[in-house]
This record gives sequence, C-alpha cells and structure tokens, in this order.
Amino acid sequence: MRIRKKNWTQDELENSKFLIRQPDEYKGRWKEKFGSENPLHVEIGCGKGKFVAEMSKANPCINYIGIEKFTLVAARAIRKCKLLEAGDNVFIMSVDAEEIENIFDPGEVSRIYLNFSDPWPNRKKWIKKRLTNEKFLQRYENIFGNKGEIFLKTDNREFFEFSLQSFSEKGWILRNISLDLHNSGFEGNIMTEYESKFSEQGMPIYRLEAYYNKKEEK
Amino acid sequence: MRIRKKNWTQDELENSKFLIRQPDEYKGRWKEKFGSENPLHVEIGCGKGKFVAEMSKANPCINYIGIEKFTLVAARAIRKCKLLEAGDNVFIMSVDAEEIENIFDPGEVSRIYLNFSDPWPNRKKWIKKRLTNEKFLQRYENIFGNKGEIFLKTDNREFFEFSLQSFSEKGWILRNISLDLHNSGFEGNIMTEYESKFSEQGMPIYRLEAYYNKKEEK
Repeated sequence: MRIRKKNWTQDELENSKFLIRQPDEYKGRWKEKFGSENPLHVEIGCGKGKFVAEMSKANPCINYIGIEKFTLVAARAIRKCKLLEAGDNVFIMSVDAEEIENIFDPGEVSRIYLNFSDPWPNRKKWIKKRLTNEKFLQRYENIFGNKGEIFLKTDNREFFEFSLQSFSEKGWILRNISLDLHNSGFEGNIMTEYESKFSEQGMPIYRLEAYYNKKEEK
Repeated sequence: MRIRKKNWTQDELENSKFLIRQPDEYKGRWKEKFGSENPLHVEIGCGKGKFVAEMSKANPCINYIGIEKFTLVAARAIRKCKLLEAGDNVFIMSVDAEEIENIFDPGEVSRIYLNFSDPWPNRKKWIKKRLTNEKFLQRYENIFGNKGEIFLKTDNREFFEFSLQSFSEKGWILRNISLDLHNSGFEGNIMTEYESKFSEQGMPIYRLEAYYNKKEEK
C-alpha cells in the first residue's frame, strides 16, 4: 500500500492536535511549537504509532515526533495518540525521511528511533534506500548538530549486520548491542506492533545504540 | 584441564620443528626466523591447531603462529601440524596471551585470529579476562604498530555483543559482520574443532572483522 499524495480525508484527522500538516514551517522553532525546552526524540517510520504514543506517555519530559511516509498509516498513528490520550509532547507528520533536513535545524533533534525499518534486499541497488546507509547517517548528523544518538531495533539479520557496519564506518560508537533483546535482561522496552508479532513467532529481535559525536576540526 | 607448568615431556614434541620454546628470543626477528618477508598472522588460543595448521597449508605466502596457553593442548596443535605435513610457515608456542608484547615488536603482526575464545561470564570481575577487553585491544594495537586487523569467530552471543562494543569504543572499524556465518554465503571458511561441533548442534556462529588504524597525533 503505497500512497504518495497526502490527502487527509477525515475531519477527525485533519483537525487533530497531533497532526503537523506543514512540518517545514517549524524548522528551527520546535521548542516554541512544543512550548518547552525538553529534548526532542524523533521516530522515523512510526507506523501505526504505538511506540511513539506510549513513549510520550511514559516520558512526559521528552518531546516526541513520529514521522511516517504513508499518509493512511500516519492517520492510524494520530488515532493511536488520541486513543491513548497522549499529551502535548507528541506530534505526528507524514513526510519522507529524506526530507528531515528541511524540517529540523542542526541541534534540534537529540535522539532518533529506527524501529523495524524496511530492511530492503541485501543488494547494491536497494541499499541506498536503507535508513542506515551512509547518506542517511549524514542527514542524521546534520540535524543532530554536535551530538546525537540512534536507537535501532529490527528483526532482520542482514539489515542489522549492515547497520552495525555502517555506523562503525562513519565513526559512530556502538553501545548496548543486543542480539536477542527479549532474552537479554533489557528493561523498559516498549514494543512496536511489528515487534510483538515477530517476537511471538520466536524470532530474535536485534537492538543497538549508536552515538554520534562531532569530531573537532583540526 | 589447566596446566601452568610448561613441561614438554615427549621427545616427539620437544624436538618438533613446529615448536617455539623461547618465543621472546625472536622478538623483532620473526622475519628472520621464518626466512621470509611475508605477513605474519597469529591465532591467539589455537587449541588443537586445526585452524592454524589448515590455514598455513592453504596460504603458503602467509606466516602463521598459533599461541596456546595450555601446554598439553599446544602439544596437540604441534601434532596436528605434523599430521597435516604443514610447511615452514607455521609455528606453535605455549604462552599466555598477556605476554604478546614481550614476543612481538610493533608492526611484526598484521592480523590476529580469535576463534571461539573463552567468553567468560558476563560479569565485571570476569570481563578483564576476555581477549577483547580494552586492555587486550591496547596490547594488540601495540604489536600491530600502525595498523592491523582482527578476525573473530564465536558461538557465544554475550561475548560477541561485548566484543562489537569494545572494538567500537576503541575506534576500530567493524566490517563483514555475520550473525549466522554458516548461512551467510561467506566463502573459504576454515572451521575450528569447536566450530564443527557447535554448528552441528544448529547454533549460529558469529563473526566479525575489526580494523585498527593508528590515528595521527595532532
């Protein structure tokens, strides 16, 4: 199901307080929009929104934005926020991840979540689509400014192997790697819709944290 | 079976051409000892020697040293070299990995293999024993000189997670990571004794390559 046009058909969604219709309007002014100085965490590919909505409830002192390319799916995320009675610390927007530099100024985002991103096939022509390829890491660095971190979960072995290497090549530091998250003693994990499904099937969930720190120029 | 004293009891082993009795004698002179300018690859913890012996046969233009702490096990490795009719490009020595800086000058070793190293329990007091902790990586850097690489295989998930992080923290670059080596399309894999056993049990084998490049001083 691939929807390119951003038609918000239902009034309920159109007028939802959780929807950001024109994300680039707020570039450089996200603190103003949220009305707080709290850190901003962004989930790229938030799907139906369970993760970002629950996180926003669990962490009222963090601001959240869920980005979802497919409008109809983003609509589900908005509905989820409403259903969970999420607060003023979460917004949903329907844009492509390639656009993030037009939406955030350097330093505005401090953490990005990549949960069960599309792994794309392990072939050269598809790798450029992966959200952890070099080009995307460069975009993340640009919106992080001096430093930032990515928390990634996936059930796809090849995508995870690729991501570890990609972060490493770019000089990011890898921490808290888990090759079987649900049997690792990791606490406070909030599951996405996909995660519950895959985990029930007995598949291991992979997780990593990657830290970016801008190198001083010589 | 833990043997601390290095008693070579059998004549067959005492006089084997594959045995290095006094490894520190050759510090800085390994090229002379091998009689060639070929690169030197060292397996730390070579066990019964299948891997290092087969590698030396498959790659006549690489010099190999197998290091094994336990003398009686090292004796098995020597016997394996004899059995496989290994050439002049492989030696076995029985020393502790902590001693490597007394055995190799900076730049003498270009690659280290860590195959199924003792994972030690995932607790602070044991981590200092792990062959991929920060202290050991520093030793490896010292014998590499300007650059070097480590090829690691293990069946132990926690040890692998720890190793990925340890290399990353120290600024090494991770490449060719596999979370299921035997189902990954990796070619030319030479199996160790352990590896055959674990793999037959259906356990995934983890593998990584970690690359060290000395940073220029500012």
